[in-house]
Amino acid sequence: MSMVKMVEYDDAPPEVKAVYDDIMATRKSDWVNNFWKTLASHPPTLRRIWTGVKDVMSPGSLDPLTKEMIYVAVSASNNCEYCIHSHIASARAKGMTDEMLGELLAVVGMSNQTNRLANGYQIPVDAQFKPVP
Amino acid sequence: MSMVKMVEYDDAPPEVKAVYDDIMATRKSDWVNNFWKTLASHPPTLRRIWTGVKDVMSPGSLDPLTKEMIYVAVSASNNCEYCIHSHIASARAKGMTDEMLGELLAVVGMSNQTNRLANGYQIPVDAQFKPVP
Amino acid sequence: MSMVKMVEYDDAPPEVKAVYDDIMATRKSDWVNNFWKTLASHPPTLRRIWTGVKDVMSPGSLDPLTKEMIYVAVSASNNCEYCIHSHIASARAKGMTDEMLGELLAVVGMSNQTNRLANGYQIPVDAQFKPVP
Amino acid sequence: MSMVKMVEYDDAPPEVKAVYDDIMATRKSDWVNNFWKTLASHPPTLRRIWTGVKDVMSPGSLDPLTKEMIYVAVSASNNCEYCIHSHIASARAKGMTDEMLGELLAVVGMSNQTNRLANGYQIPVDAQFKPVP
Amino acid sequence: MSMVKMVEYDDAPPEVKAVYDDIMATRKSDWVNNFWKTLASHPPTLRRIWTGVKDVMSPGSLDPLTKEMIYVAVSASNNCEYCIHSHIASARAKGMTDEMLGELLAVVGMSNQTNRLANGYQIPVDAQFKPVP
Amino acid sequence: MSMVKMVEYDDAPPEVKAVYDDIMATRKSDWVNNFWKTLASHPPTLRRIWTGVKDVMSPGSLDPLTKEMIYVAVSASNNCEYCIHSHIASARAKGMTDEMLGELLAVVGMSNQTNRLANGYQIPVDAQFKPVP
Repeated sequence: MSMVKMVEYDDAPPEVKAVYDDIMATRKSDWVNNFWKTLASHPPTLRRIWTGVKDVMSPGSLDPLTKEMIYVAVSASNNCEYCIHSHIASARAKGMTDEMLGELLAVVGMSNQTNRLANGYQIPVDAQFKPVP
Repeated sequence: MSMVKMVEYDDAPPEVKAVYDDIMATRKSDWVNNFWKTLASHPPTLRRIWTGVKDVMSPGSLDPLTKEMIYVAVSASNNCEYCIHSHIASARAKGMTDEMLGELLAVVGMSNQTNRLANGYQIPVDAQFKPVP
Repeated sequence: MSMVKMVEYDDAPPEVKAVYDDIMATRKSDWVNNFWKTLASHPPTLRRIWTGVKDVMSPGSLDPLTKEMIYVAVSASNNCEYCIHSHIASARAKGMTDEMLGELLAVVGMSNQTNRLANGYQIPVDAQFKPVP
Repeated sequence: MSMVKMVEYDDAPPEVKAVYDDIMATRKSDWVNNFWKTLASHPPTLRRIWTGVKDVMSPGSLDPLTKEMIYVAVSASNNCEYCIHSHIASARAKGMTDEMLGELLAVVGMSNQTNRLANGYQIPVDAQFKPVP
Repeated sequence: MSMVKMVEYDDAPPEVKAVYDDIMATRKSDWVNNFWKTLASHPPTLRRIWTGVKDVMSPGSLDPLTKEMIYVAVSASNNCEYCIHSHIASARAKGMTDEMLGELLAVVGMSNQTNRLANGYQIPVDAQFKPVP
Repeated sequence: MSMVKMVEYDDAPPEVKAVYDDIMATRKSDWVNNFWKTLASHPPTLRRIWTGVKDVMSPGSLDPLTKEMIYVAVSASNNCEYCIHSHIASARAKGMTDEMLGELLAVVGMSNQTNRLANGYQIPVDAQFKPVP
C-alpha cells in the first residue's frame, strides 16, 4: 500500500483531473495507473513529472521503444519493482519480445559487472577516450 | 593509477596475448585499452570477461548501437568514470550524436528520478502490469 | 520473514533486555520493533547500532524532524522498504505532513536525476565551488 | 572535461541565453556554472531541468536550507562529486555550518548502514508502521 | 512472478537441459532453482552465466565459503532479495553460523556508512595508500 | 581537497588527540590518515566511527583478512575511491595477493551482474531458500 492516499479520478481536484485527462488522451487509454494516483497527493509533483515524462519519452532522435528499453535498463539496475513492471509492459506494447528483453538484461548485467571491475581496480581512463577540448 | 600492474603486450604470457590479439582483430584496432591490460593481472577474469562482452555486445535482436547506449545508461547511473568514457566513445564511433546522447541522458535522469518516487512512496504495482501466469 | 530468528523480550538474555529497556524508555513506548529484535541475534551489533542511532538522531544543531527527513531521503534513494516505513512513521509522529513528504520526495527525485546528469556528462567542478585551503 | 562542449553565454542561441539570464536573475549572481553550460548542449534538457530545480527548491512547507541539505544527503549517498560540491556550497551560503554538515553526514552514514542491515536480514515491516488504508 | 515464463526441465530444449543437468551434477542436487529456470528464457544468457558462476565460485586462492560471504555482502549492499536468500542458504550449507552472518553484515553496514562519509566529505586519498608505479 | 579543514595532531583538542593516539596504538603506526583527520572536524563522529570500526574489524568468528576483503567488496561495489585504496592497502598488509584480489573482484563483478538479472526479471524466491519459522 502506498505511503499516502491515492487520488481517484472522481475525488480529484480540477488541476489533478486535467493531468489525468491528458495522461489518458496521450496514451489512448481509459485508466490511470497507481504511479500518477500517488503523485496526485502532491499536485505540483504530479504536473511536473507528467510533463517531464511526456517530453522525454516522445519520439526524437531516439525512437520510443529504445527509450523504453533504456528506462527498463536503469530501473533493473536500481531495482525499482514498480518501474520494472510498468516499463517492461510499455516496452512490450511497443514491440519488445522475450528475446529482446533477454539481450537487454544481458547488457544490463554485463555493464553492472564491468562497472565494478573498472571501479574496484581504479582503472585510469585511456587518453584515447578523453574528449578533445 | 590502477591498483595492480597493467600487463603490456610485450610482457604478456601467451594466454593473455591470445586474448589481446582477439580484441584487436575483433575491433579492427591496433591497441588494447587499460581495462583489458588491468584484467590481465588475473588471466581467468580477462578471458571470461572478454568472451562475455564479445557475446553480449554482438548484433542480435538489438543492434550494436542500441546495446552501447544501454551500456552508457547503466554506467552513467552507476557513476563508473572509466565505463562512461569508453562506452560513449564506442557509441560515438557507431553513430551516436550529441543530440542522441542528450536524449539518452535525459531518459537516464528521468528514470532515476521516478525510480525514487515509486520506491519512496512504496507504490503498489497495478494488476494490469503483472505478467499473466 | 527475517533471515534469523528474532529475539522476543521474554527470551532475551540480560544484555539484550537492557537495550530493549533503553529503547522503550528513550522512545516512551511499550514495544520494540522488528529491526532491534532481528539485530538482537548478534548482541554486539544491537548495542553498537542502538547507541549510534540514539546519538546521531538526538537534537543538536539540526532538529530531530530534519534528521528524520534526511533519513527518509537516504532510505528512499536506496530503496530500503523497512527503513522507508519506519522513518516515515517517525517523521509523521514528529509533525511531517503529506505536503512536507511531497516536497521531500520531490527533492529526492530531482537530486537523483541531476546526480546522473552530472555524472553521465562528467561535468567538471567549477573553481568557485572548491573549498579554499 | 565534460563529454560535450560546454556552451558559453556569448555563443549561446537565444533560447539558451534566456535560461542563463533567468538563472542569474533568480540567484542574483553574475555567472553560470558548468552544470548548466553542459546541459545547454541539449536545450530541451536545460530548460526542463532548470524549471524543475527552480520549482522544487523554492520555499514551501520546507525551507530552502532544509531542501539543500536533503540534496547534499542524496548526492553524498550516490557519490556525485559535482553535486556534493555545488550543493554544499549552496547550503553554506544559506547558513550551514561545519557542525551542521557533521550532523547531516552522520545521519547519511548511519542510514546507509541501517538500510543494509534491514535489507541484509530481510527484516519484515512491523504492522504498526504500515499506512492505514 | 517472473517477468517471463520459467522453463521447466521437461519442457526444456536440449541445450537448456544440458545446463540444468550440469547444475544438478555440480551441486549434487536434484532440482534447479528459479534463477536458472528464468534465465533459460534466453539460452545464451543461461549458458554464459552458469559457466561464469561455476568458474568464479570454484575453490581457488579464496575458499568457497569466503566467496559465498562476499556474494552475500554485495547482494545485501545492493538489496537483491533473491540473491540474499539464495546465497545465505549456500553460505549456511558451507558452514556459516548466525554469529558469522552477524559479523559479515556488521562489516557490510559499517563499510556502507564510511563509504558515504569518505565520499560526502570528498576525502583525498593519502599518498601512502597509492600503488607504487 | 576535503570539504572541511582536516585537523592535524598538533592542532587537535584533547578529545581528538585521544582518538588519534588510540588509532596509532591499535595499528602500531606513527601517522593518522586523512579519513580520521577529516572526521575530526566533528568530534562525536570521529569517536563513534573509530570505536565502531575498531569493534567491527577486530578478530571474531571471521578473521581480520576476510573482514578487510568484505570491506573492499562493498567499497568496490559502491565506488568509494578513498575506501578502495585504504582497504586494499590494509588487506595487502594482512596477506592479500594480486591473485586473491583478482578472485575477490571477480565475485564482486559476478554478484553485481546476477543481482540485476534477478531484479530485472523479478525472479521469485524459491520456497527452499526461505528461512524456516
